[in-house]
Amino acid sequence: MSLDNIRIVMVEPLYGGNVGSVCRAMANMGLRDLAIASPRGFDMDEARMMACHATHILDARTVYGTLAEAVADCGLVMGATARTGLYRAHARTPREWAPRALSSARTGKVAMVFGREDNGLSNNELALCTQIIQIPTTAEFPSLNVAQAAMICCYELFVAAGRYEGPDEKTGEAPSALRERMFDIWRETLLAVGFMKDDKTDHMMMGLRRILSRGMLTVDDVHILMGMARQALWAAGRGGGDESSDVVPPDADG
Amino acid sequence: MSLDNIRIVMVEPLYGGNVGSVCRAMANMGLRDLAIASPRGFDMDEARMMACHATHILDARTVYGTLAEAVADCGLVMGATARTGLYRAHARTPREWAPRALSSARTGKVAMVFGREDNGLSNNELALCTQIIQIPTTAEFPSLNVAQAAMICCYELFVAAGRYEGPDEKTGEAPSALRERMFDIWRETLLAVGFMKDDKTDHMMMGLRRILSRGMLTVDDVHILMGMARQALWAAGRGGGDESSDVVPPDADG
Repeated sequence: MSLDNIRIVMVEPLYGGNVGSVCRAMANMGLRDLAIASPRGFDMDEARMMACHATHILDARTVYGTLAEAVADCGLVMGATARTGLYRAHARTPREWAPRALSSARTGKVAMVFGREDNGLSNNELALCTQIIQIPTTAEFPSLNVAQAAMICCYELFVAAGRYEGPDEKTGEAPSALRERMFDIWRETLLAVGFMKDDKTDHMMMGLRRILSRGMLTVDDVHILMGMARQALWAAGRGGGDESSDVVPPDADG
Repeated sequence: MSLDNIRIVMVEPLYGGNVGSVCRAMANMGLRDLAIASPRGFDMDEARMMACHATHILDARTVYGTLAEAVADCGLVMGATARTGLYRAHARTPREWAPRALSSARTGKVAMVFGREDNGLSNNELALCTQIIQIPTTAEFPSLNVAQAAMICCYELFVAAGRYEGPDEKTGEAPSALRERMFDIWRETLLAVGFMKDDKTDHMMMGLRRILSRGMLTVDDVHILMGMARQALWAAGRGGGDESSDVVPPDADG
């Protein structure tokens, strides 16, 4: 798995809460290799609390004396910075870099580096980074919390890896013939309950068609709408005992 | 601005740190309307600390007794949930919903709702949501910190709004003619310093061409590479005092 080859490196994190939040974000997004470079000590209780169910990542962290050591075995080394400066012109967004990171991670280690809460990455540390990541923000508030920055980068990697499958509707989009049967029943019902008169029927039905066409209707949706109309027709006293019609009492329409 | 019409609603937040983190994320991503529904009290000092430079959003929050009141004036109401259940089949990702949210926000208020840290959104609260948001995660760790979830949703809105402009390179991609002048100088230099012999020259130069073609070279990049080659040629004693050649001492190559 490409994601297993991507290391999140935190340089001199100050706050345990941020380290824990990064662990949780990594677990959410399928990453597991956390490195801490040049640790200056952080509150481990806070880290555990914010890591939540991801303490296994916290416990498995590797610690390095310097960033150079933490990325020594990595080909692609990406550093996140919000600063402007000489290197800024080369910065790309996490979404732009994600395919490159996954491609490099297929054959070797990749590092994604996040700087100190108070001071980011030094120029010497940025020099170790082959690529610079800049997260899109407003110009007025460009400084992200380090765990939020890591979350966005991890999220973009996870999405780019294509490992998320969205839920499918239980039934597919209703075919026209089924939809037309539903509109036939609604027409009959709305006439029967006196909602519309014969001469306005086509106009009113166009309104209902428009409303029900704004989103996709699944087969299940159309069955619910048919059941509602049948029940109203039955309650209006038109369907009772008429076995030749589509109209059935509600219990039979399970 | 569409983003001004999008309200972030937190239902019964427990931890001030999360409320503050949501404020900071909103400021990063150009949102400003924060509502708290059914507050049960949170640590305001923690909230201020995590809000960082975004305390103006915290201070301007509106408080409502219930979620129904908090979204009463909103057309589109989107609720974030990681739970599975009846409604899950209709969930879409923040990236899928973002254009819809911006479109609705052009003409009216939109709400994006986040549930309790410990208990998410109730079924009655989800019923108020016209759309369900599901953030892509691994199946093993689907539960995001609420501020991380809000950040991803705000980030997707900001990106979809097209308000971020990435940095441009200071100079454009170098044209072929300039690149060829650079390779000519490198060829002369590498022969002069004895790096390659005449019969291997074309082969070695193809290697250098391949290396320097893996990424885009800007005009500035090519000037730097030309300067390096000229300097090496000069230092090798070939250029000294030869005013007819391309080769100049380093000080003249500012």
